[in-house]
Amino acid sequence: MEVARDIASLQKAVGEARAGGLRVGLVPTMGALHAGHLSLVSEALRATEYVVVSIFVNPTQFGPSEDFDAYPRPEESDLAACNDVGVDLVFAPSVDQVYPGAIATTIHVAGLSDTLCGPHRPGHFDGVATVVAKLFNLVRPDVAFFGRKDAQQLAIIRRMGADLNFPVAVEGCPTVREADGLALSSRNAYLSTDERARAIALHDALAAARDRIRAGTRNAAPLVREMASIVQKSRPTAVDYISAVDPDSLRPIDTIEGPVLLALAVRYGKTRLIDNVLVDPTERG
Amino acid sequence: MEVARDIASLQKAVGEARAGGLRVGLVPTMGALHAGHLSLVSEALRATEYVVVSIFVNPTQFGPSEDFDAYPRPEESDLAACNDVGVDLVFAPSVDQVYPGAIATTIHVAGLSDTLCGPHRPGHFDGVATVVAKLFNLVRPDVAFFGRKDAQQLAIIRRMGADLNFPVAVEGCPTVREADGLALSSRNAYLSTDERARAIALHDALAAARDRIRAGTRNAAPLVREMASIVQKSRPTAVDYISAVDPDSLRPIDTIEGPVLLALAVRYGKTRLIDNVLVDPTERG
Repeated sequence: MEVARDIASLQKAVGEARAGGLRVGLVPTMGALHAGHLSLVSEALRATEYVVVSIFVNPTQFGPSEDFDAYPRPEESDLAACNDVGVDLVFAPSVDQVYPGAIATTIHVAGLSDTLCGPHRPGHFDGVATVVAKLFNLVRPDVAFFGRKDAQQLAIIRRMGADLNFPVAVEGCPTVREADGLALSSRNAYLSTDERARAIALHDALAAARDRIRAGTRNAAPLVREMASIVQKSRPTAVDYISAVDPDSLRPIDTIEGPVLLALAVRYGKTRLIDNVLVDPTERG
Repeated sequence: MEVARDIASLQKAVGEARAGGLRVGLVPTMGALHAGHLSLVSEALRATEYVVVSIFVNPTQFGPSEDFDAYPRPEESDLAACNDVGVDLVFAPSVDQVYPGAIATTIHVAGLSDTLCGPHRPGHFDGVATVVAKLFNLVRPDVAFFGRKDAQQLAIIRRMGADLNFPVAVEGCPTVREADGLALSSRNAYLSTDERARAIALHDALAAARDRIRAGTRNAAPLVREMASIVQKSRPTAVDYISAVDPDSLRPIDTIEGPVLLALAVRYGKTRLIDNVLVDPTERG
């Protein structure tokens, strides 16, 4: 496995792979890799012939009061994990390589960025869309792999890619969960033992609403109320949102007539967790 | 010469050229081609091996009170001109091909978009940056060619390309002028005979200021005043700006210590004209 720390090394290695006719896959990450990331890598290894994992804690997607400095950076174990599963290249640049000076250019995806997590994380999705466009141009992958756990991010990147005609297929991969249902997240490491136990409420709430839909409920309001009730019992520090939305437009749904994304963001102490499930009402539980 | 009306035809043709090892050049235009555009094409033919000219009157870069509907679209003569000089492919898509639905994604280049023409054309440069990113992704040229006549557009595209790591070299090509100095523009066709005669004031003002700098003037304020005085004598309908700015940052310069961009935008009747010269103070006239 090769590790590229600078753009020139990255482009030399990927250019050779591309010149050799290999289909290039990209898994963009901020490191602190867990089984969720590794499932993206597995899918990339299956679907493409030369797999690049980028590890970059992107400063422009953190708000001033967010956890950029505290975000975990266990690089040695991340590289070992990538090497173990057969990644071809890790791109682990410094901030200076990605942002050699102040960046003047911003990509904004209107509508999709302004709902759910958007109002709670001003500028976050602009930072994400912009750095993903940079990575698309730097790596020029055939396919890029993102987790459905970050459903809003996935919708925004799909839309950005389509709107700007990026020649990159965007693949969304299933959320990986702990045995008790908690979605894997690098931020789970911030949780105290007590918070970790309470955080199971996110998945419990989503699963309860999913079961109600499968049992025939089509009115979104009581579903949202039930999810809120389950979450409230876990004594959250704050509930940013609990919503039933269209999976593509992310607009709220009143009556469930097709696939619906149930999504929530809840804080325990200083840790903000998100989770979601995509429910097809035609599937019976 | 091939004419592609849709994205699939474009990408098939360019893909074959690229697979054949040809360096691809792109000249993005809104049609109504004049000798200025053709000088860009000449440079593209010289510097690259497969030249694509795009002809697309991009609706998103026109304001609601601007001339989108009236903008000239002499397609037959544009295609003939491209064919005559040896263009390989013209990409002349419909609006629906480029914008199959409402576009949610916008690229904004802060600072550079907010000065000179920016305040007078809200949203214009976002529309330009976004459609150029789309064209870069659709055509994937090695080099793209833009006129220095649109100096602010060129600075914004250079910055956007660098900030987003687009693998496209951006070439700025010299302004082409009429015998009396008027910069070629598709919008010159809007001028009445009287307005056409008065419009020479743009170049006269720039030339006078350039000569002053070459003669030793280093204080920008009197230069701007002299340019304004020359323009005022031409009885303009409005003067949007007359400025001496840094060619890269487009920030106003007080004391000229290096290359300076003298730029102005002036209206005669309903026609808005822009022009500029880049002056190196170390060159003597």
